[in-house]
Amino acid sequence: MAVTIYDVAREANVSMATVSRVVNGNPNVKPATRKKVTACIERLGYRPNAVARGLASRKTTTVGVIVPDISKSYYAELSRGIADVATMYEYNIILSNSDKRPLREMELIEDHLGKQVDGLIFMSDSISDDVRKEMNSANIPIVLAGTLDSKFEFPTVNIENKEAAHAAVNELIENDHKRIAFISGPFSRDINRLSKKTGYEEAMAEAGLSIPEGYIVETDNTYDDAYEVWNRLKKLPEPPTAVFAGNDEIAVGLMNGIRDAGLAVPNDIELICFQHSILARAVRPQLTAIRVPLYDLGAVSMRLLTKLMNGEEVDQKQVVLPYQLEQRDSVRSN
Amino acid sequence: MAVTIYDVAREANVSMATVSRVVNGNPNVKPATRKKVTACIERLGYRPNAVARGLASRKTTTVGVIVPDISKSYYAELSRGIADVATMYEYNIILSNSDKRPLREMELIEDHLGKQVDGLIFMSDSISDDVRKEMNSANIPIVLAGTLDSKFEFPTVNIENKEAAHAAVNELIENDHKRIAFISGPFSRDINRLSKKTGYEEAMAEAGLSIPEGYIVETDNTYDDAYEVWNRLKKLPEPPTAVFAGNDEIAVGLMNGIRDAGLAVPNDIELICFQHSILARAVRPQLTAIRVPLYDLGAVSMRLLTKLMNGEEVDQKQVVLPYQLEQRDSVRSN
Repeated sequence: MAVTIYDVAREANVSMATVSRVVNGNPNVKPATRKKVTACIERLGYRPNAVARGLASRKTTTVGVIVPDISKSYYAELSRGIADVATMYEYNIILSNSDKRPLREMELIEDHLGKQVDGLIFMSDSISDDVRKEMNSANIPIVLAGTLDSKFEFPTVNIENKEAAHAAVNELIENDHKRIAFISGPFSRDINRLSKKTGYEEAMAEAGLSIPEGYIVETDNTYDDAYEVWNRLKKLPEPPTAVFAGNDEIAVGLMNGIRDAGLAVPNDIELICFQHSILARAVRPQLTAIRVPLYDLGAVSMRLLTKLMNGEEVDQKQVVLPYQLEQRDSVRSN
Repeated sequence: MAVTIYDVAREANVSMATVSRVVNGNPNVKPATRKKVTACIERLGYRPNAVARGLASRKTTTVGVIVPDISKSYYAELSRGIADVATMYEYNIILSNSDKRPLREMELIEDHLGKQVDGLIFMSDSISDDVRKEMNSANIPIVLAGTLDSKFEFPTVNIENKEAAHAAVNELIENDHKRIAFISGPFSRDINRLSKKTGYEEAMAEAGLSIPEGYIVETDNTYDDAYEVWNRLKKLPEPPTAVFAGNDEIAVGLMNGIRDAGLAVPNDIELICFQHSILARAVRPQLTAIRVPLYDLGAVSMRLLTKLMNGEEVDQKQVVLPYQLEQRDSVRSN
């Protein structure tokens, strides 16, 4: 007997509308719910009609996924979301690591096209002119997952990173901080330079706060590099009293540097960041953070790609998912 | 002009013998060195003769990778090692998540065989009879990466998990602990049940220590589940004074549970674990741990697979890589 949407809804203990939203990549579903429903769909072997329709007319069954580094939790979690929806629609994924090198990215795109993939999910720090040209001349749909397209040419799925950064810095401003630093990953990454840094600068400007020299620090995105940052910040004429960090690995490195300098978070320095992994919750104090719905960014990207591969009409090609500000212990409650 | 092994050695600042060891999947290379050399090979576009030989006689150029969950750091890091060596030998990888469900694993193996992959890297908690049968009847080479084969039928690349667990528990015994608990991931996972648990039990027996009821705790391998464990341990007639944890995510959950119960690591409770991620180093106190060379387990598995796919003679099909005991701060130095 065929498994119906009703069976999935009952098994997952959600409404049929929710199952439908998950299947259709609608962003208004909580991450945990999406995961649960996807698991039930998979377990029960449910095949929505749209999937069946798509399957009937298909050539190959493969999608290329180009990722900077699968060993980074940001991309590992995105990739899991991509893979789950790919499985639901019976696509295989060919996964390649680019290390964000434009030459390698071009090679990989060409390679995937040569393999006759039906579509491509692309993730990177920024899109070089050559890569952009290569992608524009590809005759298959391409979706950017958790990756900024500064020219808005390609379908993308993201959160509002600038707005989220702004909101994070506002949390510190509301606690009366005047001296707020920004510790970022590499500015070669568009999301860092164009979104998070701009959100920080706008929030500071709106509050009439200046950004002294040395308050914006670029790291290589690693714990070890971030650990060294406090040694530089503390030597500034006016060291910061609060820090906004680009992600939780940087935040934890910084926090341990602060601690080893004899200061405490949040009593001496308050700290907020973007959350990409379990780190934000595992350390003490737990980090107040913008939770990025990485699994969902991947899942919705892949669903968008299936629609494009299927020739369906897609109204909104710049999909924006909601983020959440998680109040924890590295910022004092006001 | 063709790039030679000499160019790679100079670029990576290592000996030609080291480059050769990396290319041939020899385990006697430090993880950082292997990563550096692989990166140079990739950057310079070096193609060892063995690769060229292999490429000439090839049918397709694809390897299947079946992984329980790519969003887990253990598998993400293994997969990066696999992917880098696959790239070096010009194989694409098709990656699939099995969630360790035997039915899904069988489906995926069949699916990969149908796609005419040249070989398969398989990772899982344990190998069910059905999966074993399926793999035995496959007409392509299969290598298990970081995955135990209790019957030693398939080529595997692992560390000596039992010996490492034994060594970890010995660290606690040398600090005069008599009451040592073991907090594990699921015992459905062979490495946990057959290797780590046995290593723990043997070390305890050798030291003449008993294992009271309640000292062996099975968790679902998550931070949250492990966080609750101390609440149970502290109610035992004789609560443990030291704990060996199956991995760092469990260890950190447990440590925070211990802390929130008003006790301190290592002063009240000493703690040692296997290290699968940055967590072990990011928390304070940093965790004393068995460092598992995950990237290398993946890289060497893939190299072994290329040899098997190429029909080369392979003497040793059970490859064992070295592990390291990292002395940090969750066990007092003796």
